[in-house]
Amino acid sequence: MAAYDVLVEVALRPGIADPQGATIERALPALGFTGISGVRSGKAFRFSVDAATPAAAQAAAEDLCRRFLTNPVIEDSVVTVAAGAGPS
Amino acid sequence: MAAYDVLVEVALRPGIADPQGATIERALPALGFTGISGVRSGKAFRFSVDAATPAAAQAAAEDLCRRFLTNPVIEDSVVTVAAGAGPS
Repeated sequence: MAAYDVLVEVALRPGIADPQGATIERALPALGFTGISGVRSGKAFRFSVDAATPAAAQAAAEDLCRRFLTNPVIEDSVVTVAAGAGPS
Repeated sequence: MAAYDVLVEVALRPGIADPQGATIERALPALGFTGISGVRSGKAFRFSVDAATPAAAQAAAEDLCRRFLTNPVIEDSVVTVAAGAGPS
């Protein structure tokens, strides 16, 4: 078994209202930022998974996303298993 | 100018208490997940930056992080400029 570092990015699905992202975007011109658009806010989770292979770690993380970390009605998730994780 | 898709991951710095992550981790065994540890929660932002080069987009996003999206006393940020972004 090895420990794999996993990053899960949870974002609202396209079309779901994102008041936090809209508020950030509206504030940008007053702060001097131009050319930034389409701001969407979401959540990020990092954790370590004990698994035999990177594919097994990815599968465990995706199962966790589906059952616990996201609301699949309104949220999408992207799971990234860090390539550099070594055996523990 | 081209539009570059940017992902910003904001995470609490090491050593800063993360009650949300700790609560998730404590709930995992009851849900049947084993071998998952070190859960840390954070925020994710996605937006589009108009810039001449990927490096300029990265610099603009890092400036935005420093001045607006993160509290550098307790948070770290990671900026990723999507490689696949095409000219707009």
